[in-house]
Amino acid sequence: MRLAKEVLQGNIKATARLIRDVEDELPSAIEELKALYPYTGRSYIIGITGSPGSGKSTLIDMLIDVFRKRGKTIGVIAIDPSSPFSGGAILGDRIRMQRHATDGGVFIRSLATRGWRGGLSRATANIINIMDAMGKDIILIETVGAGQAEVDIINFTHTTMVMLVPGMGDWVQTLKAGILEIADIFVINKADKKGADELKAELEAMLQMSAYSPQAWKPKIFLTEAVNNKGIDELVEGIYQHKEFLIATGGHDTHLKERARLELIEVLKSSLMDHVFQIVNKNNYLEKLIDDLVNKRTDPYSAASDIIKKLAQEGKL
Amino acid sequence: MRLAKEVLQGNIKATARLIRDVEDELPSAIEELKALYPYTGRSYIIGITGSPGSGKSTLIDMLIDVFRKRGKTIGVIAIDPSSPFSGGAILGDRIRMQRHATDGGVFIRSLATRGWRGGLSRATANIINIMDAMGKDIILIETVGAGQAEVDIINFTHTTMVMLVPGMGDWVQTLKAGILEIADIFVINKADKKGADELKAELEAMLQMSAYSPQAWKPKIFLTEAVNNKGIDELVEGIYQHKEFLIATGGHDTHLKERARLELIEVLKSSLMDHVFQIVNKNNYLEKLIDDLVNKRTDPYSAASDIIKKLAQEGKL
Repeated sequence: MRLAKEVLQGNIKATARLIRDVEDELPSAIEELKALYPYTGRSYIIGITGSPGSGKSTLIDMLIDVFRKRGKTIGVIAIDPSSPFSGGAILGDRIRMQRHATDGGVFIRSLATRGWRGGLSRATANIINIMDAMGKDIILIETVGAGQAEVDIINFTHTTMVMLVPGMGDWVQTLKAGILEIADIFVINKADKKGADELKAELEAMLQMSAYSPQAWKPKIFLTEAVNNKGIDELVEGIYQHKEFLIATGGHDTHLKERARLELIEVLKSSLMDHVFQIVNKNNYLEKLIDDLVNKRTDPYSAASDIIKKLAQEGKL
Repeated sequence: MRLAKEVLQGNIKATARLIRDVEDELPSAIEELKALYPYTGRSYIIGITGSPGSGKSTLIDMLIDVFRKRGKTIGVIAIDPSSPFSGGAILGDRIRMQRHATDGGVFIRSLATRGWRGGLSRATANIINIMDAMGKDIILIETVGAGQAEVDIINFTHTTMVMLVPGMGDWVQTLKAGILEIADIFVINKADKKGADELKAELEAMLQMSAYSPQAWKPKIFLTEAVNNKGIDELVEGIYQHKEFLIATGGHDTHLKERARLELIEVLKSSLMDHVFQIVNKNNYLEKLIDDLVNKRTDPYSAASDIIKKLAQEGKL
């Protein structure tokens, strides 16, 4: 619990250390996370998602400025597709944001999307909780939103912003169902580019067509030029409006509940698998089943159901 | 089992229908998959991964030509990051490949990366098995390799090709560890672009530095211009060399075993969760725990361990 105590006092070194321990999945980190849990649920969590090149990092950089001027402390979690295929841009983006690194009120961490035995969602939940317990007022989560895991992360956010740039093709038409579900706020960045107004009109038409209940939040659209620091204040106002809406309509409590549910399910999933593996790895039971699969004496569905039946019979689960 | 029987006879409509049923997670689809399982394990599975714009779809298009001329039947599974953020290129790519759609020896399916309650890996494993049982000699899996799930899929392939294009920045330097793990074959596509030879030299230096055991496969590098159909025959030779290497060194059997293991684990994971949820959803037990979490009377780790203990005590798991 040594680290947890220091995290609660806002100690940056201890926090970085605990995040590393969580990443390395040290058992001691679980104990620290347990100790921190009572102090979570206070940060306002904002998701920023969009394709590479839409300008997420630059926008976050600008948002940090505005929030800092309002006296808010900030955590940033950049979900970084550090596969061999993500290109070199990511590193440059991180470096851009690091101009805030000397500001004690800003804490930035990249989280690789690979190698999370326990799942990216659980890893992200843990880092959110650490920054939350550390006392950050606002946590910004940046994701490229390409995979299922990244989309799951949106479930942890209070406000989700989807970033678009003009000239990205007719995907608004083809994929609109997915967008409508996710976005609380649309940010059309690089709004000086040709087609920004058309994109806005398209989005507005799309939103008009969809049947929102009178009580529901209707996604707002903001035009920004992040590199020129244009439109950022208006966007921040929009975020605060959404926050007030959530508080007024009980959405804030719903969010806390959904976040707790997700965390529980993620932890339960990996705990269960750990538990089951400890048992089935004994006596080569798993290896025997795999051998049966290779030799087509069974199939994965029957084998899985055999494992569960066997464990249930033996009262071992 | 009606569909399974027709899939085994190579019926395209029945196969498409079963894949849809699998996507919709119909219980009947599980029975069909069980019936097909004995007929799996015969296809040669090739993974093709690289960033958007590296030319994967065009290369696959060309590979299909070469393999068809050699009399091979082909299945293609395009893992499609159909999030709202993937841009419009994907659809165009799919259409490009569809010139083979009238060829009965080619079966192409896109698989969205979103919305897989049971996980993308399991979904992919199922589609592979269906195409495998259908009698496809070769299955090509195209992924952008951005997320954990996409990387997991590489575990299902015999030969993994990583596509690079010149001028993508210095990521070879920064991310080389990840690449070395994954690739059996490097394809430098758009080899007419400036920097192709430098990229090849960089890769070669990288491979030289890494300590391969004398028995291990050393990744090969091929230069291609997919749009001009250049270098494809040589690449296909490289794939066959890797295949022969696998067969000669027992790697083929290891692959079948690893594939079986992964399938079992994926199915076990979702079966276990289904099983546990059925139990904890009774008597509002899960809701009570979530309420405890929100009110900080417990934490996710303690709550998950409580669930497992409770189920074990009651002999219900």
